[in-house]
Amino acid sequence: MKMDVRKTAEYLKSHDNFLILNHRRPDGDAHGSASGLCRGLRAAGKTAYVLYNPDTTEKYVKYVKDLWAPEGYVPGTVVTVDTASAQMLQTNGDIYEDKIDLAIDHHPSNTGYADNGCIYSTCAACGEIVYDILMELNGNVDLDTAAALYIAVSTDTGCFAFANTTANTFRVAWKLGEAGLEYRELNRELFRTKTKSRFALESRIMSGIEFYYGGRVAITTITAKMMDETGCTENDMDDIAAIPGSVQGVECGITMRELGDTRNCKISVRTSPRVDASALCRVLGGGGHMMAAGASPKGLTLMEIKEKLFEGLDKVYSPEDRLR
Amino acid sequence: MKMDVRKTAEYLKSHDNFLILNHRRPDGDAHGSASGLCRGLRAAGKTAYVLYNPDTTEKYVKYVKDLWAPEGYVPGTVVTVDTASAQMLQTNGDIYEDKIDLAIDHHPSNTGYADNGCIYSTCAACGEIVYDILMELNGNVDLDTAAALYIAVSTDTGCFAFANTTANTFRVAWKLGEAGLEYRELNRELFRTKTKSRFALESRIMSGIEFYYGGRVAITTITAKMMDETGCTENDMDDIAAIPGSVQGVECGITMRELGDTRNCKISVRTSPRVDASALCRVLGGGGHMMAAGASPKGLTLMEIKEKLFEGLDKVYSPEDRLR
Repeated sequence: MKMDVRKTAEYLKSHDNFLILNHRRPDGDAHGSASGLCRGLRAAGKTAYVLYNPDTTEKYVKYVKDLWAPEGYVPGTVVTVDTASAQMLQTNGDIYEDKIDLAIDHHPSNTGYADNGCIYSTCAACGEIVYDILMELNGNVDLDTAAALYIAVSTDTGCFAFANTTANTFRVAWKLGEAGLEYRELNRELFRTKTKSRFALESRIMSGIEFYYGGRVAITTITAKMMDETGCTENDMDDIAAIPGSVQGVECGITMRELGDTRNCKISVRTSPRVDASALCRVLGGGGHMMAAGASPKGLTLMEIKEKLFEGLDKVYSPEDRLR
Repeated sequence: MKMDVRKTAEYLKSHDNFLILNHRRPDGDAHGSASGLCRGLRAAGKTAYVLYNPDTTEKYVKYVKDLWAPEGYVPGTVVTVDTASAQMLQTNGDIYEDKIDLAIDHHPSNTGYADNGCIYSTCAACGEIVYDILMELNGNVDLDTAAALYIAVSTDTGCFAFANTTANTFRVAWKLGEAGLEYRELNRELFRTKTKSRFALESRIMSGIEFYYGGRVAITTITAKMMDETGCTENDMDDIAAIPGSVQGVECGITMRELGDTRNCKISVRTSPRVDASALCRVLGGGGHMMAAGASPKGLTLMEIKEKLFEGLDKVYSPEDRLR
């Protein structure tokens, strides 16, 4: 059943013993929505836990670890946040796959895998929906809940700079501040601080960037050696694919990353409307959205992948411009 | 006389033939507040112009040029926005220095140089105040006015990530979206696009950064040669001083910039609360705030300046740690 925010709050009121799940490789919205919802349910007098997610990166552990469900916890109501499909569910969540009572989500592609869905696909972050549900449920949010929801909305919009940011995103950020949240430290930690390793990697990415088609295509290559030499791990890679596309005049920014060996690569493509990122990635067995897509081609070297990308780009731009 | 937002709107209603001035080296808040106010006054049926500011950087010209006062325009009411003192007034504004009828400003240090002042020093951006004044005046803002005010509030807060961001900043951003503004293109242009020159300079800054005192102090040096080689101009230097302080663990980020010759330098210091940026800069004849200060010492080489900074830092950290 599809439910709006008010119905969802009623549903939560009439249920108990919650377990909250999110998705593989959870981001700030996944963690923030889960912990915000969990804290809000507890404030409403409910028993609620978040299922430990084995993909949690270091940065988020401190915000969620006190909410992890104890071993042997038997939930009465299973809720997912920010999870578009059962396939995307966190890897240790498969035992609940057919027993999801409620999905709270903002993905237009939500498959309806849950018995009940509270889906608002115009929201930039799932945290925006959770905020409105908790206001219906409790009439307020406490400081820890506000911090969790701020992490959700701010990270999913790249601190309000991504194309998905709407007036509603700002409304929620405003209300969280009105609830007493200080943005300062969170902003500093999430958006204004880089590890030394990330800093070193960015410097190398920036100096090694290559331009094609008269500066309209930028390609950056992150080799396994660069990762080793800078000491970067998965924790340092947030939003790295945005770098080549951030240069003025670039319509298609491509990030090619070697994973371990030279024939195992990950490609991320970010484009402006002129270039279909998804079509470019399909040739390499990948896919995604018009303006953000990816692929993980196996058995091809970086040079071979580049050649395939050029073939696709030659259809958009003039092939004579390739090396210009 | 000190006036609140409502009184200021009444004042504007009962006056006409406005000329709006802002400050030297105008930033997004100066331009956005001036053009937002000008458009709002016109919407209220008034004659209003912005005084051409000779320091206007390329990036902002398109947003303000259609509002520049024609030659020979004789104002009836002179208003400044975002300008803390008569000394800070735009360089061609000195003929109005003693005739400022109204100052709209958010600087705590506003000297009261104008006959009337609408000063809200808790606002992150002057644009927040202008928004509230225009809502009192007209009950709404049109799309161009909303864009101008969004430029003001978003740039002055580093896209809502700086320490000065408050709930009120988000409230205004939300209201501008409710008025129909699309944030997408402005965000892309202002925060997600770098010139190739800036990109190249950042890469060199990042690879050349030096750490001292066990990684708690970071110093970056921008030589005149680096500016030449990357093709950077003043237009490319927004917020460049934030780079060294953005590395994890750094409590004091120092940017030293050679201006033309080797004995003419500009120093910018950004700190966390442990280090008094203003005290560090005072030794070099400069000053500023606790966490953001600067100096322009004359006749000293970069090495000599560095030595003076170290002397100051030795009082905060252990001198044995200097080269650690």
